[in-house]
Amino acid sequence: MSLLVTGSIGIDTVKTPHGVSEECIGGAVVYFSMAASFFCPVRFVGVVGDDCPFDLAKLFSGRNVDLAGLEIRPGSKTFRWMGTYHEDMDSRTTDYVELNVLGEAPPKVPTAFKDSRFVFLANTAPKLQHELLDQVAEPEFVAADTMNLWIQGHLDELKALLKRIDCLIINEDEARMLAGDQNLIAAARTILGMGLWVVVIKKGASGSLVCDVDGNIFVLPAYPAEKVVDPTGAGDSFAGGLMGCLAESGRSDFQTLTRAVAYGTVVASYTISDFSLKGLTGITRRDIDDRLAELHKVVKF
Amino acid sequence: MSLLVTGSIGIDTVKTPHGVSEECIGGAVVYFSMAASFFCPVRFVGVVGDDCPFDLAKLFSGRNVDLAGLEIRPGSKTFRWMGTYHEDMDSRTTDYVELNVLGEAPPKVPTAFKDSRFVFLANTAPKLQHELLDQVAEPEFVAADTMNLWIQGHLDELKALLKRIDCLIINEDEARMLAGDQNLIAAARTILGMGLWVVVIKKGASGSLVCDVDGNIFVLPAYPAEKVVDPTGAGDSFAGGLMGCLAESGRSDFQTLTRAVAYGTVVASYTISDFSLKGLTGITRRDIDDRLAELHKVVKF
Repeated sequence: MSLLVTGSIGIDTVKTPHGVSEECIGGAVVYFSMAASFFCPVRFVGVVGDDCPFDLAKLFSGRNVDLAGLEIRPGSKTFRWMGTYHEDMDSRTTDYVELNVLGEAPPKVPTAFKDSRFVFLANTAPKLQHELLDQVAEPEFVAADTMNLWIQGHLDELKALLKRIDCLIINEDEARMLAGDQNLIAAARTILGMGLWVVVIKKGASGSLVCDVDGNIFVLPAYPAEKVVDPTGAGDSFAGGLMGCLAESGRSDFQTLTRAVAYGTVVASYTISDFSLKGLTGITRRDIDDRLAELHKVVKF
Repeated sequence: MSLLVTGSIGIDTVKTPHGVSEECIGGAVVYFSMAASFFCPVRFVGVVGDDCPFDLAKLFSGRNVDLAGLEIRPGSKTFRWMGTYHEDMDSRTTDYVELNVLGEAPPKVPTAFKDSRFVFLANTAPKLQHELLDQVAEPEFVAADTMNLWIQGHLDELKALLKRIDCLIINEDEARMLAGDQNLIAAARTILGMGLWVVVIKKGASGSLVCDVDGNIFVLPAYPAEKVVDPTGAGDSFAGGLMGCLAESGRSDFQTLTRAVAYGTVVASYTISDFSLKGLTGITRRDIDDRLAELHKVVKF
């Protein structure tokens, strides 16, 4: 089924203990689309300025990603982010952010994309997420991400968004902040009370936790990766694998969701194995399925 | 099969966001024995001073714990520990430690215990762990715990110990310190190179990781507990459930070990649900088996 994603496209500079990657392509919609394209056709919605040095058509060439929703806005500047990962590779410092075009009006959802059944609203201001969602006619399953900035400063708009969507995919610290509870199970229950039917909490190297309104719980460790070069994009690749798997199957029941989370986990493990998108561009669906089988094996008791 | 444990008995004072537990019984051998006694007979070796306010015979009454190795040393003082858990319940500050009797000669292993097949050397100075192990005739499977203090200050004795045992059960930060590697898979491989055949890395609320010399890997999340009151003793209860399960089955192959780690995970989830030993004293083996089935269910995809 059709999968629509809206989110940032960025010029990233990343420092990790393994090296530096300067002015490389990044952004949620880019990682998400690359990850999801292993599973189903992806409808890409994002905006860059006319300074954008990347050829996205080339990047996604041969992949099932429809760039009709890519806007190159004259006179605007592309989003930029610079971050440094600490020795543990699980925490990072943001060195600078230039919102640029992301601080302007959101891109338009093309008419041909308005019938999308599965939708992912990557992290941005809840107001923009509302405006983007307004442009989709009758989505079947909508997931969104958010961050501390919006929880602290735009909570009402965020809470209104949560009533309109099915699933929140969120970092553990942000889940705690949103719920006002340190315990993640309790936090998940509080968040579910805000109107969602399922919440997926991303715990980085510690894996993920899924809770739904029927009391179902699913926990999965991260894939035990020995090679972690650059965690940038892990969360968006995870969401891409997850939503791609759901859209591929056309289902969103809890059992399908557990399998989708496992796929998200596997795709993210490839993302972190190299800088920028290099961990994803060299693999095939076969590699992903093989690693899924491996993940099955390492959690079996 | 027979399971011998040596380790500390303490007078603990614990502060958590849920309250304070003053001068309660604690110590590795106490948590371990209580946890393991759900699975198999336990041979208890530990020492207290004559100031010890606890009736251990009463505590273990009706349980399969042989206290023949409990020494009450005249003129000595019992080990004391005070700690404060932070808001996240996963990190803590040690407010004070009084080694007291733990700084003296180790207790004797009773003659009747010398034929023990499964042995756990809880965290103490490697020199004492050597002396305790010397007193066991032909153990089949020996596991040990250690801590930063011995890694930093007594590394040669610790490394000599690792050549004599089968399994190290260690916290993630200490595994990183011992191996000099931030990545846990890489750290596990380095530690295995020190002469063990298996290493179990405890990651607190993030679960555990097991690696053996044949390249087998097992990862398990923690049981998703909504009620976490006091994490004290979680690691020793985990080890108790793990070793108890191995000794019960009389096996130590990797497959049995994965099941043992799952049992350890479940027992630890009960420990942290209340202060001191209260989370363990009210449950039965049936409760543990039920929760193991639940753990199976929540990790299934």
